[in-house]
Amino acid sequence: MSVLVLGSIALDTVKTPVEEHSDLLGGSASYAAVAASFFSPVKLVGVVGNDFPESEFDFWKSRKIDSEGVQRVNGKTFRWSGEYSWDLNTRETRSVALNVFEHFRPKLPESYRKTDFVLLANIAPALQTHVLQQMERPRFVVADTMDLWIETTRADLDTLLPGIDLLILNDSEAREMTKETSLIKAGRRIRKLGPSYVAIKKGEHGALLFGEDEFFSCGAYPLEDIHDPTGAGDTFAGGMAGYIAGTVGGKVTFTNLRKAMIYGSVLASFAVEAFSLDRLRNLSIDEINERYETFKLMSQFEVPV
Amino acid sequence: MSVLVLGSIALDTVKTPVEEHSDLLGGSASYAAVAASFFSPVKLVGVVGNDFPESEFDFWKSRKIDSEGVQRVNGKTFRWSGEYSWDLNTRETRSVALNVFEHFRPKLPESYRKTDFVLLANIAPALQTHVLQQMERPRFVVADTMDLWIETTRADLDTLLPGIDLLILNDSEAREMTKETSLIKAGRRIRKLGPSYVAIKKGEHGALLFGEDEFFSCGAYPLEDIHDPTGAGDTFAGGMAGYIAGTVGGKVTFTNLRKAMIYGSVLASFAVEAFSLDRLRNLSIDEINERYETFKLMSQFEVPV
Repeated sequence: MSVLVLGSIALDTVKTPVEEHSDLLGGSASYAAVAASFFSPVKLVGVVGNDFPESEFDFWKSRKIDSEGVQRVNGKTFRWSGEYSWDLNTRETRSVALNVFEHFRPKLPESYRKTDFVLLANIAPALQTHVLQQMERPRFVVADTMDLWIETTRADLDTLLPGIDLLILNDSEAREMTKETSLIKAGRRIRKLGPSYVAIKKGEHGALLFGEDEFFSCGAYPLEDIHDPTGAGDTFAGGMAGYIAGTVGGKVTFTNLRKAMIYGSVLASFAVEAFSLDRLRNLSIDEINERYETFKLMSQFEVPV
Repeated sequence: MSVLVLGSIALDTVKTPVEEHSDLLGGSASYAAVAASFFSPVKLVGVVGNDFPESEFDFWKSRKIDSEGVQRVNGKTFRWSGEYSWDLNTRETRSVALNVFEHFRPKLPESYRKTDFVLLANIAPALQTHVLQQMERPRFVVADTMDLWIETTRADLDTLLPGIDLLILNDSEAREMTKETSLIKAGRRIRKLGPSYVAIKKGEHGALLFGEDEFFSCGAYPLEDIHDPTGAGDTFAGGMAGYIAGTVGGKVTFTNLRKAMIYGSVLASFAVEAFSLDRLRNLSIDEINERYETFKLMSQFEVPV
């Protein structure tokens, strides 16, 4: 089954202690859509300017990503520039130019409205709600969010939460949102705000998943060399949503959500191996499945391995 | 099989944001010995003063902890006092009085020298080496260490490492020891200093285990309320060493070390539920096994659960 992916599409400039690259394809929807497309057809929603490379539309087509919902608008594409600290653990935004994103008001094509699975990738919660309102009763809605929205548009976020099934956020955001220092308490408290499931990303420490009476904890894939952490969280969300929609064929159980979380982690581990989406562009499903098997080996302790 | 446990025996004063208690049984060997004793007979090595309660010797006896190697010396028992931050994540040492510990020079009873399994719990590495030199070719040696020794007696630690099989330390200590920000690189680098296996404890984020070509990652048991984190690491080390020595009967494989790490985590999760060793004192093996099963449920993603 298809998954609709809403989010930002950007041209990034990224500086790490080792390298700097400009005009890279970026944005939450870019990463999430490509990650999801390994498992499921994607309907992409976003906006780009007339400086946006036509070749990316060809790339989306090659990956079965429907771009009918991507508006092309006069002006420049959203641009973000960031610089990472020496250990890649923190980053500073150097500049943001909203450009065509400033007045973006997503309007879904008719063919998008009945999509069963939805990923509202990281974007202003008011836009996430706006898209959700145009859908005809989707079966499962995943939303990703970030500190910016928790701090500046909390009311919009609170409006969104009861309408979604799975919220994805990182550990510091979960703490900020709930004022709980315990991630276990934070995850359980966020469930009470609406979503049946909550996924907390912990970077190098893996991720946690909370259901009604269920809990899942997984490590991160052990990477020695990270080149560009940009988009890791978006890729995680895309992999998770794509796996639920595609491979599982819509059967949403906690067991399937566990696997989806591992696939999200696997996709994210590839994404950070190169700048922009470069590693995802030439990634194969065999490589994904191989890393999934490694994940099994590194987390089993009961079955002899 | 038995496990010899060397470490500190202390009387602690612990202050959390909620409570303060004095004259609590503490010290690395106290926690480690009791944790190990759930799986294996223990031979304890340490020193206490004449203010040390006789009742603790009775308690050890009840748990099959041989205290022949515990020296009773004229003077006061080692005392430590610490205060935890509001979120229990950091602590400050308020005072340390070495007392009888200052001139402690462990001398093993004859009956201890042939013990197959050894846990050198957290104590000065020179003392760890001194005890190891009195042993007759033990089969498996586990050592725990801490930032203090990495910073002040690094040469002694480097001398110890080639003689041990498993080093246990926490994430910040692993980074400090190797100057690597990646825990994956840090774990692999520490193996090159001697120990075949390295366990990195990450507190609420679980633990990592490194072997020659093997890697294991596990989460922490999800606790909502922690009362006193003191001794969690010592309990983890004791549970791990005790499980290897006792339950596995000495068959040291990476698969068994994985299980040992889960049991160490389980024991530590109980230890922090109350001050001092209070929760460990009335803990049953059934409760331990039940939490081990929960660990399985929360980390499996392939087997339907």
